[in-house]
Amino acid sequence: MVYIGVDLGGTGIKAGVVDEQGNIIAKESCPTGVERGYAPVIEDIAKLCTRVASRAVHDMSEIKCIGIGLPGIYVPATGRVPFCTNLSWHDVPLLSEMRKYTQLPVFADNDATVAGLAEAVAGVSAGCKTSVFVTLGTGVGGGIIIDGKPYSGPHGIASEVGHMITVAGGELCTCGNKGCWERYASATAIIREGRKYAKFHPDSALAKAVNGDLDAIEAKTVIDLAKEGDPAASELFDQYVEHLCVGLVNLINLYDPEIIALGGGVSHAGQFLLDRVNDILPKMVFYKTMPYAKVELAKLGNDAGIIGAAMLGR
Amino acid sequence: MVYIGVDLGGTGIKAGVVDEQGNIIAKESCPTGVERGYAPVIEDIAKLCTRVASRAVHDMSEIKCIGIGLPGIYVPATGRVPFCTNLSWHDVPLLSEMRKYTQLPVFADNDATVAGLAEAVAGVSAGCKTSVFVTLGTGVGGGIIIDGKPYSGPHGIASEVGHMITVAGGELCTCGNKGCWERYASATAIIREGRKYAKFHPDSALAKAVNGDLDAIEAKTVIDLAKEGDPAASELFDQYVEHLCVGLVNLINLYDPEIIALGGGVSHAGQFLLDRVNDILPKMVFYKTMPYAKVELAKLGNDAGIIGAAMLGR
Repeated sequence: MVYIGVDLGGTGIKAGVVDEQGNIIAKESCPTGVERGYAPVIEDIAKLCTRVASRAVHDMSEIKCIGIGLPGIYVPATGRVPFCTNLSWHDVPLLSEMRKYTQLPVFADNDATVAGLAEAVAGVSAGCKTSVFVTLGTGVGGGIIIDGKPYSGPHGIASEVGHMITVAGGELCTCGNKGCWERYASATAIIREGRKYAKFHPDSALAKAVNGDLDAIEAKTVIDLAKEGDPAASELFDQYVEHLCVGLVNLINLYDPEIIALGGGVSHAGQFLLDRVNDILPKMVFYKTMPYAKVELAKLGNDAGIIGAAMLGR
Repeated sequence: MVYIGVDLGGTGIKAGVVDEQGNIIAKESCPTGVERGYAPVIEDIAKLCTRVASRAVHDMSEIKCIGIGLPGIYVPATGRVPFCTNLSWHDVPLLSEMRKYTQLPVFADNDATVAGLAEAVAGVSAGCKTSVFVTLGTGVGGGIIIDGKPYSGPHGIASEVGHMITVAGGELCTCGNKGCWERYASATAIIREGRKYAKFHPDSALAKAVNGDLDAIEAKTVIDLAKEGDPAASELFDQYVEHLCVGLVNLINLYDPEIIALGGGVSHAGQFLLDRVNDILPKMVFYKTMPYAKVELAKLGNDAGIIGAAMLGR
């Protein structure tokens, strides 16, 4: 048996046929076309599934189910998507729309949760029954796997790890609260602090790296200079990792996973990031002599969405 | 079938026989005598179990198992207690010691986890598959129930909710980190802030309530004055509830439980506490139009330890 996984994003839809081990056998994609509203988008998802399946299998009976990862939440009990901000979806009947085109079982979940499942099946968290996946991108997303299964909570709103408040009274977040972890642990946080520093230090290596065009400072600009040993960039990066570790230690104190896998843009800092995390985190864990989660880099990159979605019905 | 539950504390051991519904049929207790070391304490636990069982059942075959709640952590895979600070236990072979006296299956878990299980079986969280129990006492403890089962994580160190950092860089905690939730959400936090205020305001109602003996200020002193409408005590209490809600919203964003049950000393503030929580919390939840955890007062009080421990093997 094989599985179809769909990675539904704001700009594109990707679908793949995935085997039991999490290998992608065939892959197809098309633009999302959000502006058309949900019905044609879901029709395109179904068509893409048929197209990619016909390339991978002789008989549709070899397909066990369809899984969809989406940038929002899905409530299995109703088959509806209450929110999906990037798609401007609000209370969309995803399951009944899919039913117009397919009789296969349809599963869906949040894209970070799905990526966490992919890592747990075929990535860095493989072999661990309980794992947490954290994306360090524009925001901070999370995927929680407990006993091999994605955990989204009874209302489907669990694993909003980026909106865990770690600095009460701190930076204002898009969610309306102050001091959410993603204000400090996202790529956006590195960019914000880097630009702030460069503004007040026009002679800094950071300002010079972008020829004074501060809007051109990206997370990578700061990280690359820190890697080269520039003192100011190193300090900005260290402050970032300290905030990152505050959230990581919270995840350890609450979920006690076997592994925390880091994905998203900032994770491209690679071993340099892990080394700093491993300097700071061990001093912060509550039970210092007990085993606790190892922190590793996610392995599957962009394919995690397809693989994890496919595995939802495994 | 009935179950034996043991509530092992620093000063006393309580044991009870509990039925399937979580009702206590018989109860016995004895002093812990921590200073004797672990072996005689565990022998006393076993004797207490036999004594209470003989009062409740005709035949020991009616007893299904023994469960023990303890103020530390237990690792089922090794049968050992790595830490139990209040008992000065370190790497104690609880299971093999119990095996000297009984052939019944023996389970054990953290006391807050066990209390959370009790509430989930026979208390305010009954009927909810996923719940969080939070004790607001000297510290802040937590019990996580997922799918009807206590969740302690693969290393047994999950649910240390009190050591979730909510104010990075804040008050120094006993664990060595700064800004742990329990520095702000425990009874100890109310006492600290109350005494601090009274020190600088000797004419305040708070200072007068204890005739200037600031060490006599307890959490109840502040809460009672806040209930009476004293402005300074009300503000202290509101600040407390704001910090409490920061942690509660984190628990919602991470576990998405059906219910959060509040126990421990501060929960005796009762409806007055719930009312303030329900003023503040709804403004902080991430998905404001989706259903999320209700916050309620725990119901079982001191019996929760026995009942929950008994239910560990259910």
